[in-house]
Amino acid sequence: MTIAADPVKLSKQEVGRAAAALVQSDSIVGLGTGSTTAYAIQFIGERLKSGELKNIVGVPTSFQAEVLAKEYGIPLTTLDAIDHIDIAIDGADEVDPQKNLIKGGGAAHTREKVVDYLANRFIVVVDGGKLVDRLGSSFAVPVEVIPMAITPVMNAIKKLGGKPELRMGIKKAGPVITDQGNMVVDVRFDSIPDPVNLETTLNNIPGVLENGIFVNCTDVVLIGEVRDGQPVVRQM
Amino acid sequence: MTIAADPVKLSKQEVGRAAAALVQSDSIVGLGTGSTTAYAIQFIGERLKSGELKNIVGVPTSFQAEVLAKEYGIPLTTLDAIDHIDIAIDGADEVDPQKNLIKGGGAAHTREKVVDYLANRFIVVVDGGKLVDRLGSSFAVPVEVIPMAITPVMNAIKKLGGKPELRMGIKKAGPVITDQGNMVVDVRFDSIPDPVNLETTLNNIPGVLENGIFVNCTDVVLIGEVRDGQPVVRQM
Repeated sequence: MTIAADPVKLSKQEVGRAAAALVQSDSIVGLGTGSTTAYAIQFIGERLKSGELKNIVGVPTSFQAEVLAKEYGIPLTTLDAIDHIDIAIDGADEVDPQKNLIKGGGAAHTREKVVDYLANRFIVVVDGGKLVDRLGSSFAVPVEVIPMAITPVMNAIKKLGGKPELRMGIKKAGPVITDQGNMVVDVRFDSIPDPVNLETTLNNIPGVLENGIFVNCTDVVLIGEVRDGQPVVRQM
Repeated sequence: MTIAADPVKLSKQEVGRAAAALVQSDSIVGLGTGSTTAYAIQFIGERLKSGELKNIVGVPTSFQAEVLAKEYGIPLTTLDAIDHIDIAIDGADEVDPQKNLIKGGGAAHTREKVVDYLANRFIVVVDGGKLVDRLGSSFAVPVEVIPMAITPVMNAIKKLGGKPELRMGIKKAGPVITDQGNMVVDVRFDSIPDPVNLETTLNNIPGVLENGIFVNCTDVVLIGEVRDGQPVVRQM
Protein backbone atom coordinates (compact mmCIF):
# COMPACT_ATOMS: atom_id res chain seq x y z
CA MET A 1 0.00 0.00 0.00
CA THR A 2 1.63 3.23 -1.21
CA ILE A 3 -1.09 5.69 -0.17
CA ALA A 4 0.41 8.54 1.86
CA ALA A 5 -0.46 9.06 5.48
CA ASP A 6 -2.34 12.35 5.13
CA PRO A 7 -5.86 11.67 3.86
CA VAL A 8 -6.80 15.38 3.71
CA LYS A 9 -3.89 16.12 1.43
CA LEU A 10 -4.75 13.03 -0.59
CA SER A 11 -8.35 14.14 -1.00
CA LYS A 12 -7.17 17.54 -2.26
CA GLN A 13 -4.96 15.73 -4.73
CA GLU A 14 -7.85 13.60 -5.94
CA VAL A 15 -10.10 16.64 -6.42
CA GLY A 16 -7.34 18.36 -8.36
CA ARG A 17 -6.91 15.26 -10.51
CA ALA A 18 -10.66 15.05 -11.16
CA ALA A 19 -10.75 18.72 -12.23
CA ALA A 20 -7.71 18.31 -14.48
CA ALA A 21 -9.45 15.34 -16.15
CA LEU A 22 -12.23 17.69 -17.32
CA VAL A 23 -9.81 19.74 -19.44
CA GLN A 24 -9.86 18.85 -23.14
CA SER A 25 -7.24 19.37 -25.85
CA ASP A 26 -7.32 22.64 -27.84
CA SER A 27 -8.71 24.73 -25.03
CA ILE A 28 -8.07 27.92 -23.09
CA VAL A 29 -7.99 27.18 -19.35
CA GLY A 30 -8.46 29.63 -16.48
CA LEU A 31 -6.02 28.66 -13.72
CA GLY A 32 -7.25 29.49 -10.22
CA THR A 33 -5.58 30.06 -6.88
CA GLY A 34 -5.28 27.95 -3.72
CA SER A 35 -3.90 24.66 -2.46
CA THR A 36 -6.46 22.39 -4.16
CA THR A 37 -6.30 24.25 -7.45
CA ALA A 38 -2.53 23.89 -7.30
CA TYR A 39 -2.97 20.11 -7.69
CA ALA A 40 -5.24 20.68 -10.69
CA ILE A 41 -2.51 22.76 -12.34
CA GLN A 42 0.02 20.05 -11.58
CA PHE A 43 -2.14 17.30 -13.14
CA ILE A 44 -2.94 19.41 -16.23
CA GLY A 45 0.80 19.79 -16.69
CA GLU A 46 1.33 16.05 -16.32
CA ARG A 47 -1.40 15.29 -18.89
CA LEU A 48 0.29 17.73 -21.29
CA LYS A 49 3.70 16.17 -20.70
CA SER A 50 2.39 12.65 -21.32
CA GLY A 51 0.81 13.75 -24.62
CA GLU A 52 -2.69 12.91 -23.42
CA LEU A 53 -3.56 16.63 -23.71
CA LYS A 54 -2.49 18.86 -26.59
CA ASN A 55 -2.65 22.58 -27.39
CA ILE A 56 -3.59 24.01 -24.00
CA VAL A 57 -3.04 27.61 -23.01
CA GLY A 58 -3.59 28.89 -19.46
CA VAL A 59 -4.85 32.22 -18.10
CA PRO A 60 -3.58 32.65 -14.52
CA THR A 61 -5.76 34.30 -11.85
CA SER A 62 -2.80 35.11 -9.62
CA PHE A 63 0.96 35.19 -9.34
CA GLN A 64 0.75 31.81 -7.57
CA ALA A 65 -1.08 30.26 -10.54
CA GLU A 66 1.42 31.78 -12.95
CA VAL A 67 4.40 30.34 -11.10
CA LEU A 68 2.82 26.87 -10.87
CA ALA A 69 1.84 26.87 -14.55
CA LYS A 70 5.42 27.67 -15.54
CA GLU A 71 6.71 24.98 -13.18
CA TYR A 72 4.43 22.34 -14.73
CA GLY A 73 4.96 23.43 -18.32
CA ILE A 74 1.58 24.98 -19.16
CA PRO A 75 1.92 27.77 -21.78
CA LEU A 76 0.32 31.02 -20.62
CA THR A 77 -1.52 33.87 -22.29
CA THR A 78 -3.28 37.07 -21.19
CA LEU A 79 -6.88 38.21 -21.41
CA ASP A 80 -5.90 40.66 -24.17
CA ALA A 81 -4.93 37.81 -26.51
CA ILE A 82 -8.12 35.73 -26.27
CA ASP A 83 -11.85 36.21 -26.76
CA HIS A 84 -13.10 33.43 -24.48
CA ILE A 85 -12.06 30.90 -21.85
CA ASP A 86 -13.24 27.30 -22.32
CA ILE A 87 -12.89 26.09 -18.76
CA ALA A 88 -11.72 27.60 -15.48
CA ILE A 89 -10.75 25.73 -12.31
CA ASP A 90 -10.65 27.63 -9.04
CA GLY A 91 -11.16 27.20 -5.29
CA ALA A 92 -13.65 28.87 -2.95
CA ASP A 93 -13.96 29.85 0.72
CA GLU A 94 -17.67 28.98 0.92
CA VAL A 95 -20.07 27.16 -1.42
CA ASP A 96 -23.85 27.18 -0.93
CA PRO A 97 -26.35 24.61 -2.32
CA GLN A 98 -27.04 26.87 -5.35
CA LYS A 99 -23.28 26.78 -6.09
CA ASN A 100 -22.89 30.44 -5.19
CA LEU A 101 -19.50 31.22 -3.69
CA ILE A 102 -17.57 33.46 -1.37
CA LYS A 103 -13.99 33.93 -2.53
CA GLY A 104 -11.20 36.35 -1.70
CA GLY A 105 -9.37 34.86 1.28
CA GLY A 106 -6.21 35.48 -0.72
CA ALA A 107 -7.29 38.98 -1.79
CA ALA A 108 -7.26 37.78 -5.41
CA HIS A 109 -11.01 37.74 -5.98
CA THR A 110 -11.08 40.62 -8.47
CA ARG A 111 -8.74 38.94 -10.93
CA GLU A 112 -10.40 35.58 -10.21
CA LYS A 113 -13.83 37.05 -10.94
CA VAL A 114 -12.68 38.46 -14.27
CA VAL A 115 -11.29 35.06 -15.34
CA ASP A 116 -13.88 32.73 -13.78
CA TYR A 117 -16.93 34.72 -15.03
CA LEU A 118 -15.49 34.60 -18.54
CA ALA A 119 -15.24 30.80 -18.63
CA ASN A 120 -17.79 28.78 -20.58
CA ARG A 121 -17.41 26.12 -17.91
CA PHE A 122 -16.39 26.98 -14.35
CA ILE A 123 -15.26 24.14 -12.09
CA VAL A 124 -14.91 24.80 -8.37
CA VAL A 125 -12.63 22.57 -6.32
CA VAL A 126 -13.04 22.50 -2.53
CA ASP A 127 -12.84 20.28 0.49
CA GLY A 128 -16.07 19.39 2.26
CA GLY A 129 -15.45 21.97 4.98
CA LYS A 130 -16.28 24.77 2.56
CA LEU A 131 -19.90 23.69 2.05
CA VAL A 132 -22.47 25.85 3.88
CA ASP A 133 -26.24 26.06 3.87
CA ARG A 134 -26.05 29.80 3.49
CA LEU A 135 -23.25 32.11 2.34
CA GLY A 136 -21.70 34.16 5.13
CA SER A 137 -22.14 31.40 7.72
CA SER A 138 -18.48 31.24 8.58
CA PHE A 139 -16.63 33.49 6.13
CA ALA A 140 -16.78 37.27 5.80
CA VAL A 141 -17.35 38.81 2.35
CA PRO A 142 -14.13 40.41 1.01
CA VAL A 143 -14.69 43.75 -0.74
CA GLU A 144 -11.89 45.43 -2.71
CA VAL A 145 -11.98 49.23 -2.30
CA ILE A 146 -9.88 52.10 -3.69
CA PRO A 147 -7.90 53.64 -0.81
CA MET A 148 -9.46 57.16 -0.91
CA ALA A 149 -12.96 55.70 -0.47
CA ILE A 150 -12.27 53.29 2.38
CA THR A 151 -14.13 55.27 5.10
CA PRO A 152 -17.30 56.14 3.11
CA VAL A 153 -17.47 52.56 1.79
CA MET A 154 -17.20 51.13 5.32
CA ASN A 155 -19.96 53.52 6.46
CA ALA A 156 -22.17 52.52 3.50
CA ILE A 157 -21.62 48.86 4.36
CA LYS A 158 -22.68 49.49 7.98
CA LYS A 159 -25.91 51.03 6.67
CA LEU A 160 -26.51 47.77 4.76
CA GLY A 161 -26.24 45.89 8.07
CA GLY A 162 -22.71 44.57 7.55
CA LYS A 163 -19.82 44.66 9.99
CA PRO A 164 -16.80 45.81 7.98
CA GLU A 165 -13.22 45.26 9.05
CA LEU A 166 -10.20 46.53 7.16
CA ARG A 167 -7.94 43.55 6.39
CA MET A 168 -4.56 44.14 8.00
CA GLY A 169 -1.29 42.86 6.62
CA ILE A 170 0.99 40.23 8.07
CA LYS A 171 4.65 40.70 7.17
CA LYS A 172 3.46 44.20 6.15
CA ALA A 173 2.64 47.18 8.40
CA GLY A 174 -0.87 48.55 7.94
CA PRO A 175 -3.56 47.19 5.62
CA VAL A 176 -3.19 44.47 2.99
CA ILE A 177 -2.72 46.01 -0.46
CA THR A 178 -4.01 44.01 -3.44
CA ASP A 179 -2.25 43.41 -6.75
CA GLN A 180 -4.27 46.38 -8.07
CA GLY A 181 -3.05 48.69 -5.27
CA ASN A 182 -6.35 48.70 -3.36
CA MET A 183 -7.48 47.66 0.13
CA VAL A 184 -9.77 44.82 1.27
CA VAL A 185 -12.65 45.18 3.70
CA ASP A 186 -13.94 41.89 5.17
CA VAL A 187 -17.65 42.18 5.87
CA ARG A 188 -19.64 39.98 8.25
CA PHE A 189 -23.38 39.81 7.72
CA ASP A 190 -25.79 38.18 10.18
CA SER A 191 -27.20 36.41 7.16
CA ILE A 192 -27.07 36.75 3.38
CA PRO A 193 -30.59 35.81 2.27
CA ASP A 194 -30.07 37.07 -1.30
CA PRO A 195 -26.46 36.80 -2.53
CA VAL A 196 -27.37 37.88 -6.09
CA ASN A 197 -28.74 41.15 -4.80
CA LEU A 198 -25.92 41.67 -2.29
CA GLU A 199 -23.25 41.21 -4.96
CA THR A 200 -24.81 43.97 -7.06
CA THR A 201 -25.49 46.25 -4.10
CA LEU A 202 -21.89 46.03 -2.88
CA ASN A 203 -20.45 46.63 -6.37
CA ASN A 204 -22.62 49.72 -6.71
CA ILE A 205 -21.16 51.50 -3.67
CA PRO A 206 -18.91 54.20 -5.15
CA GLY A 207 -15.29 53.21 -4.65
CA VAL A 208 -15.86 49.44 -4.64
CA LEU A 209 -13.98 47.49 -7.33
CA GLU A 210 -15.25 43.92 -6.82
CA ASN A 211 -16.56 41.81 -3.97
CA GLY A 212 -16.05 38.14 -3.19
CA ILE A 213 -19.61 36.95 -3.84
CA PHE A 214 -19.70 34.86 -7.02
CA VAL A 215 -23.23 34.06 -8.24
CA ASN A 216 -24.69 32.22 -11.22
CA CYS A 217 -21.28 31.30 -12.58
CA THR A 218 -20.37 27.86 -11.18
CA ASP A 219 -21.10 24.85 -13.39
CA VAL A 220 -19.62 22.02 -11.33
CA VAL A 221 -18.36 21.75 -7.74
CA LEU A 222 -15.91 18.95 -7.05
CA ILE A 223 -15.72 18.16 -3.34
CA GLY A 224 -12.89 16.28 -1.74
CA GLU A 225 -13.74 14.28 1.36
CA VAL A 226 -12.25 11.56 3.47
CA ARG A 227 -14.46 8.54 4.15
CA ASP A 228 -13.19 5.65 6.24
CA GLY A 229 -9.71 7.07 5.92
CA GLN A 230 -9.93 7.08 2.11
CA PRO A 231 -10.12 10.14 -0.18
CA VAL A 232 -13.32 10.40 -2.22
CA VAL A 233 -14.46 13.01 -4.71
CA ARG A 234 -18.10 13.83 -5.17
CA GLN A 235 -19.73 16.24 -7.56
CA MET A 236 -22.39 18.90 -7.02
CA MET B 1 -21.28 99.37 -18.08
CA THR B 2 -18.55 97.12 -16.68
CA ILE B 3 -19.85 93.74 -17.89
CA ALA B 4 -17.14 91.83 -19.77
CA ALA B 5 -17.42 91.05 -23.44
CA ASP B 6 -17.75 87.23 -23.17
CA PRO B 7 -21.33 86.34 -22.16
CA VAL B 8 -20.62 82.57 -22.04
CA LYS B 9 -17.84 83.08 -19.54
CA LEU B 10 -20.07 85.48 -17.61
CA SER B 11 -22.90 82.97 -17.45
CA LYS B 12 -20.48 80.34 -16.08
CA GLN B 13 -19.41 82.86 -13.48
CA GLU B 14 -23.00 83.58 -12.50
CA VAL B 15 -23.79 79.85 -12.16
CA GLY B 16 -20.72 79.42 -10.00
CA ARG B 17 -21.78 82.38 -7.87
CA ALA B 18 -25.31 80.98 -7.48
CA ALA B 19 -23.93 77.59 -6.38
CA ALA B 20 -21.52 79.20 -3.92
CA ALA B 21 -24.44 81.14 -2.44
CA LEU B 22 -26.06 77.83 -1.44
CA VAL B 23 -23.17 76.94 0.88
CA GLN B 24 -23.86 77.67 4.55
CA SER B 25 -21.47 78.24 7.45
CA ASP B 26 -20.31 75.23 9.49
CA SER B 27 -20.49 72.77 6.63
CA ILE B 28 -18.43 70.19 4.78
CA VAL B 29 -18.40 70.95 1.05
CA GLY B 30 -17.59 68.57 -1.82
CA LEU B 31 -15.59 70.51 -4.41
CA GLY B 32 -16.11 69.32 -7.98
CA THR B 33 -14.12 69.56 -11.17
CA GLY B 34 -14.50 71.66 -14.33
CA SER B 35 -14.55 75.24 -15.54
CA THR B 36 -17.94 76.22 -14.07
CA THR B 37 -17.24 74.52 -10.75
CA ALA B 38 -13.97 76.43 -10.63
CA TYR B 39 -15.97 79.67 -10.33
CA ALA B 40 -18.02 78.16 -7.49
CA ILE B 41 -14.80 77.38 -5.63
CA GLN B 42 -13.58 80.92 -6.23
CA PHE B 43 -16.80 82.46 -4.88
CA ILE B 44 -16.87 80.17 -1.83
CA GLY B 45 -13.35 81.37 -1.11
CA GLU B 46 -14.42 85.01 -1.49
CA ARG B 47 -17.39 84.51 0.86
CA LEU B 48 -15.00 82.95 3.42
CA LYS B 49 -12.54 85.81 3.06
CA SER B 50 -15.26 88.44 3.52
CA GLY B 51 -16.46 86.74 6.70
CA GLU B 52 -19.90 86.05 5.24
CA LEU B 53 -19.14 82.32 5.52
CA LYS B 54 -17.43 80.68 8.52
CA ASN B 55 -16.09 77.24 9.36
CA ILE B 56 -16.09 75.59 5.94
CA VAL B 57 -14.02 72.57 5.04
CA GLY B 58 -13.72 71.23 1.50
CA VAL B 59 -13.36 67.70 0.09
CA PRO B 60 -11.78 67.91 -3.37
CA THR B 61 -12.86 65.55 -6.18
CA SER B 62 -9.68 66.09 -8.17
CA PHE B 63 -6.22 67.59 -8.18
CA GLN B 64 -7.70 70.60 -10.01
CA ALA B 65 -10.23 71.20 -7.22
CA GLU B 66 -7.50 70.82 -4.60
CA VAL B 67 -5.27 73.40 -6.26
CA LEU B 68 -8.13 75.90 -6.66
CA ALA B 69 -9.29 75.44 -3.06
CA LYS B 70 -5.78 76.18 -1.81
CA GLU B 71 -5.57 79.21 -4.09
CA TYR B 72 -8.85 80.62 -2.76
CA GLY B 73 -8.18 79.81 0.89
CA ILE B 74 -10.65 76.97 1.49
CA PRO B 75 -9.35 74.53 4.17
CA LEU B 76 -9.35 70.92 2.96
CA THR B 77 -9.96 67.54 4.55
CA THR B 78 -10.13 63.94 3.38
CA LEU B 79 -12.92 61.38 3.35
CA ASP B 80 -11.19 59.53 6.20
CA ALA B 81 -11.70 62.48 8.57
CA ILE B 82 -15.44 63.03 8.06
CA ASP B 83 -18.64 61.00 8.27
CA HIS B 84 -20.78 63.05 5.88
CA ILE B 85 -20.72 65.84 3.29
CA ASP B 86 -23.32 68.60 3.63
CA ILE B 87 -23.25 69.90 0.09
CA ALA B 88 -21.32 69.07 -3.07
CA ILE B 89 -21.00 71.24 -6.19
CA ASP B 90 -19.88 69.60 -9.43
CA GLY B 91 -20.26 69.84 -13.21
CA ALA B 92 -21.63 67.32 -15.70
CA ASP B 93 -21.23 66.37 -19.36
CA GLU B 94 -24.93 65.61 -19.84
CA VAL B 95 -28.05 66.21 -17.71
CA ASP B 96 -31.44 64.62 -18.48
CA PRO B 97 -34.87 65.89 -17.31
CA GLN B 98 -34.77 63.49 -14.30
CA LYS B 99 -31.45 65.15 -13.29
CA ASN B 100 -29.51 61.99 -14.10
CA LEU B 101 -25.99 62.72 -15.35
CA ILE B 102 -23.14 61.55 -17.49
CA LYS B 103 -19.79 62.59 -16.07
CA GLY B 104 -16.19 61.58 -16.65
CA GLY B 105 -14.95 63.74 -19.52
CA GLY B 106 -11.97 64.48 -17.29
CA ALA B 107 -11.54 60.82 -16.24
CA ALA B 108 -12.28 61.88 -12.63
CA HIS B 109 -15.76 60.34 -12.34
CA THR B 110 -14.77 57.64 -9.83
CA ARG B 111 -13.54 60.11 -7.23
CA GLU B 112 -16.41 62.49 -8.11
CA LYS B 113 -18.94 59.70 -7.61
CA VAL B 114 -17.55 58.83 -4.18
CA VAL B 115 -17.79 62.48 -3.07
CA ASP B 116 -21.01 63.53 -4.85
CA TYR B 117 -23.01 60.45 -3.78
CA LEU B 118 -22.00 61.09 -0.18
CA ALA B 119 -23.40 64.65 -0.14
CA ASN B 120 -26.69 65.38 1.59
CA ARG B 121 -27.29 68.00 -1.09
CA PHE B 122 -25.73 67.69 -4.55
CA ILE B 123 -25.73 70.81 -6.76
CA VAL B 124 -24.88 70.39 -10.45
CA VAL B 125 -23.59 73.43 -12.36
CA VAL B 126 -23.72 73.39 -16.17
CA ASP B 127 -24.26 75.55 -19.20
CA GLY B 128 -27.43 75.03 -21.21
CA GLY B 129 -25.61 72.98 -23.85
CA LYS B 130 -25.34 70.05 -21.43
CA LEU B 131 -29.10 69.50 -21.21
CA VAL B 132 -30.38 66.48 -23.18
CA ASP B 133 -33.72 64.72 -23.46
CA ARG B 134 -32.00 61.39 -22.99
CA LEU B 135 -28.58 60.46 -21.61
CA GLY B 136 -26.11 59.28 -24.25
CA SER B 137 -27.48 61.66 -26.91
CA SER B 138 -24.16 63.34 -27.51
CA PHE B 139 -21.73 62.04 -24.90
CA ALA B 140 -20.31 58.53 -24.51
CA VAL B 141 -20.43 56.83 -21.09
CA PRO B 142 -16.95 56.71 -19.50
CA VAL B 143 -16.18 53.41 -17.74
CA GLU B 144 -13.07 53.03 -15.54
CA VAL B 145 -11.54 49.54 -15.91
CA ILE B 146 -8.54 47.79 -14.33
CA PRO B 147 -5.89 47.27 -17.03
CA MET B 148 -5.84 43.43 -16.98
CA ALA B 149 -9.58 43.28 -17.71
CA ILE B 150 -9.77 45.81 -20.54
CA THR B 151 -10.41 43.28 -23.35
CA PRO B 152 -13.07 41.13 -21.59
CA VAL B 153 -14.82 44.28 -20.33
CA MET B 154 -14.92 45.75 -23.86
CA ASN B 155 -16.32 42.45 -25.15
CA ALA B 156 -18.96 42.37 -22.38
CA ILE B 157 -19.95 45.96 -23.26
CA LYS B 158 -20.38 44.99 -26.93
CA LYS B 159 -22.74 42.21 -25.83
CA LEU B 160 -24.80 44.89 -24.04
CA GLY B 161 -25.11 46.78 -27.34
CA GLY B 162 -22.49 49.45 -26.59
CA LYS B 163 -19.66 50.61 -28.81
CA PRO B 164 -16.60 50.80 -26.55
CA GLU B 165 -13.52 52.81 -27.38
CA LEU B 166 -10.37 52.90 -25.27
CA ARG B 167 -9.63 56.53 -24.38
CA MET B 168 -6.22 57.45 -25.73
CA GLY B 169 -3.89 59.95 -24.13
CA ILE B 170 -2.84 63.33 -25.48
CA LYS B 171 0.61 64.43 -24.32
CA LYS B 172 0.93 60.73 -23.32
CA ALA B 173 1.59 57.73 -25.58
CA GLY B 174 -1.04 54.98 -25.34
CA PRO B 175 -4.20 55.05 -23.24
CA VAL B 176 -5.20 57.63 -20.63
CA ILE B 177 -4.37 56.38 -17.13
CA THR B 178 -6.59 57.61 -14.29
CA ASP B 179 -5.48 58.83 -10.87
CA GLN B 180 -6.18 55.28 -9.66
CA GLY B 181 -3.90 53.73 -12.33
CA ASN B 182 -6.73 52.36 -14.46
CA MET B 183 -7.95 52.90 -18.05
CA VAL B 184 -11.12 54.54 -19.38
CA VAL B 185 -13.42 53.04 -22.01
CA ASP B 186 -15.86 55.51 -23.62
CA VAL B 187 -19.03 53.70 -24.59
CA ARG B 188 -21.58 54.92 -27.13
CA PHE B 189 -25.08 53.49 -26.88
CA ASP B 190 -27.77 53.99 -29.54
CA SER B 191 -30.01 54.98 -26.66
CA ILE B 192 -30.03 54.67 -22.87
CA PRO B 193 -33.68 54.02 -22.01
CA ASP B 194 -32.95 53.02 -18.41
CA PRO B 195 -29.87 54.76 -16.90
CA VAL B 196 -30.51 53.33 -13.41
CA ASN B 197 -30.28 49.83 -14.75
CA LEU B 198 -27.32 50.58 -17.04
CA GLU B 199 -25.29 52.07 -14.19
CA THR B 200 -25.70 48.87 -12.18
CA THR B 201 -25.14 46.57 -15.14
CA LEU B 202 -21.88 48.28 -16.10
CA ASN B 203 -20.59 48.29 -12.51
CA ASN B 204 -21.28 44.58 -12.28
CA ILE B 205 -19.00 43.62 -15.18
CA PRO B 206 -15.94 42.07 -13.49
CA GLY B 207 -13.03 44.50 -13.76
CA VAL B 208 -15.13 47.68 -13.86
CA LEU B 209 -14.43 50.19 -11.07
CA GLU B 210 -17.05 52.91 -11.72
CA ASN B 211 -18.91 54.32 -14.70
CA GLY B 212 -19.93 57.90 -15.49
CA ILE B 213 -23.70 57.47 -15.11
CA PHE B 214 -24.89 59.28 -11.97
CA VAL B 215 -28.51 58.51 -11.03
CA ASN B 216 -30.81 59.51 -8.18
CA CYS B 217 -28.22 61.76 -6.62
CA THR B 218 -28.73 65.28 -7.99
CA ASP B 219 -30.82 67.67 -5.90
CA VAL B 220 -30.51 70.90 -7.87
CA VAL B 221 -29.23 71.73 -11.37
CA LEU B 222 -28.15 75.32 -11.93
CA ILE B 223 -28.04 76.17 -15.62
CA GLY B 224 -26.16 79.11 -17.03
CA GLU B 225 -27.54 80.61 -20.21
CA VAL B 226 -27.17 83.75 -22.26
CA ARG B 227 -30.37 85.59 -23.14
CA ASP B 228 -30.30 88.79 -25.19
CA GLY B 229 -26.58 88.94 -24.55
CA GLN B 230 -27.07 88.78 -20.77
CA PRO B 231 -26.11 85.88 -18.48
CA VAL B 232 -29.03 84.24 -16.68
CA VAL B 233 -29.15 81.35 -14.23
CA ARG B 234 -32.14 79.07 -14.04
CA GLN B 235 -32.77 76.16 -11.71
CA MET B 236 -34.02 72.64 -12.43
